[in-house]
Amino acid sequence: MGSPAAICFEPNRPLAVETVRVAPPGHGEAMVEIVASGLCHTDLTALDGVNATSVYPLIPGHEGAGRVVEVGEGVIGLAPGDHVIPLYGPECMHCRMCRSSRTNLCWTIKPTRDKGVMPDGTARFSWDTAPVHHFMGTSTLSRYTVVPEIALAKIRKDAPLDKVCLFGCGVTTGVGAALSEIREGDAVAVFGLGGIGINVIQGARLAGATTIIGVDITDRKNELARAYGMTDFINAGREGAKVVQAIRDLTAGGADVAFECTGIVPVMRQAFDCCHPAWGTAVLLGVEPPGAEMGFPPVGVRYGRTIRGSYFGGVKGRSGLGRLIDFYMDGELDLDRQITHTLALDQVNRGFDLMRTGESVRSVIHFE
Amino acid sequence: MGSPAAICFEPNRPLAVETVRVAPPGHGEAMVEIVASGLCHTDLTALDGVNATSVYPLIPGHEGAGRVVEVGEGVIGLAPGDHVIPLYGPECMHCRMCRSSRTNLCWTIKPTRDKGVMPDGTARFSWDTAPVHHFMGTSTLSRYTVVPEIALAKIRKDAPLDKVCLFGCGVTTGVGAALSEIREGDAVAVFGLGGIGINVIQGARLAGATTIIGVDITDRKNELARAYGMTDFINAGREGAKVVQAIRDLTAGGADVAFECTGIVPVMRQAFDCCHPAWGTAVLLGVEPPGAEMGFPPVGVRYGRTIRGSYFGGVKGRSGLGRLIDFYMDGELDLDRQITHTLALDQVNRGFDLMRTGESVRSVIHFE
Repeated sequence: MGSPAAICFEPNRPLAVETVRVAPPGHGEAMVEIVASGLCHTDLTALDGVNATSVYPLIPGHEGAGRVVEVGEGVIGLAPGDHVIPLYGPECMHCRMCRSSRTNLCWTIKPTRDKGVMPDGTARFSWDTAPVHHFMGTSTLSRYTVVPEIALAKIRKDAPLDKVCLFGCGVTTGVGAALSEIREGDAVAVFGLGGIGINVIQGARLAGATTIIGVDITDRKNELARAYGMTDFINAGREGAKVVQAIRDLTAGGADVAFECTGIVPVMRQAFDCCHPAWGTAVLLGVEPPGAEMGFPPVGVRYGRTIRGSYFGGVKGRSGLGRLIDFYMDGELDLDRQITHTLALDQVNRGFDLMRTGESVRSVIHFE
Repeated sequence: MGSPAAICFEPNRPLAVETVRVAPPGHGEAMVEIVASGLCHTDLTALDGVNATSVYPLIPGHEGAGRVVEVGEGVIGLAPGDHVIPLYGPECMHCRMCRSSRTNLCWTIKPTRDKGVMPDGTARFSWDTAPVHHFMGTSTLSRYTVVPEIALAKIRKDAPLDKVCLFGCGVTTGVGAALSEIREGDAVAVFGLGGIGINVIQGARLAGATTIIGVDITDRKNELARAYGMTDFINAGREGAKVVQAIRDLTAGGADVAFECTGIVPVMRQAFDCCHPAWGTAVLLGVEPPGAEMGFPPVGVRYGRTIRGSYFGGVKGRSGLGRLIDFYMDGELDLDRQITHTLALDQVNRGFDLMRTGESVRSVIHFE
């Protein structure tokens, strides 16, 4: 089938919008007609050539929503017409990780996903006779994409696909992390008010945090962050090294939970340092440069701090996403205000430009 | 009152056994007649001049047990004759930390404790008219010592003081950490089979771990560790960099919990690396060299590992120690086999020599 798609032929080159061929879904796979796809920072790492799981040419996109149009043999839980959100982290429901309550990770198809192909080792996309690789197993910047059933979350049909596509990454990552880590009455700090940080803030409000401190180098996200629940703002550009002390001053000695959403290693360290001794937890969400390490004094951990991370908000994709979408449908979470730009597929490069300059919170590509 | 005591006049000099003067307990303090005191590695850091809270001259010792002989004004929960274990980490029961279930730390008297004096800013010990400092607020290598009431755990009278002194540090630190972190059926790794590690092992057995891997550079502790519950041993001297892979091979991909009990930063990193992705927890117990930092790749944390620490086994000293002592009295924990040497006070330097050479697991100084 022909499908308009954004192709990254090689790093550091604008995306080309072309019509690719999409092969029918194989065993255990489904073809999805994407209705909308948010642009997320991890796509940018593929465009910039700093993502270790990128095999070029590829079709980016991992924050989409759409409808099943065709299922392959062996698909048992999906039928054409179902509404779905593709998952870069699948949930096979059978492996040791899926059976554990300690994690939402499932690495069943990670080896092939990280090589840009389906579990059978081949790609479903081609252009001008040559294969085009999948990205993160989702490639939602194609009108039609093929995804394994175990990586498709079936969702309620009354949820607007052009909005809930954001649950494919940013909203779930931020809100989920907040809901897993925060206790009612906590004081929390959020470093980086981008697509993740802003959702940590609304998740923190939902979790009952009473002090919610946002930290960013620009005041631009201030209004949105306050609307989402931020109680205090620290401009890290102006405060510099005094950020940690400023947080301690606002929280009677340190944050109960600090969320790092920038991927900048010295900021990770600030997230650790600003935590309350004895019980503060630093939660790392941001993706560091390849190979980078974070250093910390072990005494800070012996004296009670914890360093944890979070992947897709700790949410098991197929079984857990529905709960978060219900929050949105019940009016407990907002998506509309964080979608600052809606664009057509042929404006996709402008969408990434808006991300680079920090003008957008979220741009969403509409296919219809 | 005159009291035989081991004095460290300055670092890197043998301890001098002298008779010091001990002033009566002040407000909220009690005088304790120490019956026995284990020698612990943290004492050695004071002797070696690498402990930031040492003010010389000082009386070391923080793993003692004894009887209350006199109480100062304002003491409400202790009377002469009570059996007690001095606590380097007090429990005031009133501060924000004590009222939190998230921590066992209490920093109410930390500022004065870390300067080697009582909460009123003075020392109770003197020698030849000059003051001698307290160490860790306990100074149990004196026949008589003075300790604030909030730093004395009252214990059952049928517990043998020359054994349960070990609950003052090593046993509680190891067993407590194991009991807080391990779930039944876990596979755990323990780095360093000294006074802490050996007790993590018996705590792991008590917590229901089914695979308990010990790692050390010598085979010498092997027999005791196996008696305490170790199921597998890795000689880090022989295996070198292959330790992490050896643990993964023994545990279907990684330890559920890894305990670091050496304080050596590269070993801390091995404890992190050997943890199972998605849920493994590295628990740091060992004390690093002053100012040292540990580095780790944040992606390992985003993919589900946790870095935590533990102080005094997570046990609130006054309210929580009784439970552990009950385990011992019920035969669930062993102390006798880890006490490899009993010595008189005037053999204290030999006790530390045995520690330096690794010949002892625990030496206990008997005062009677």
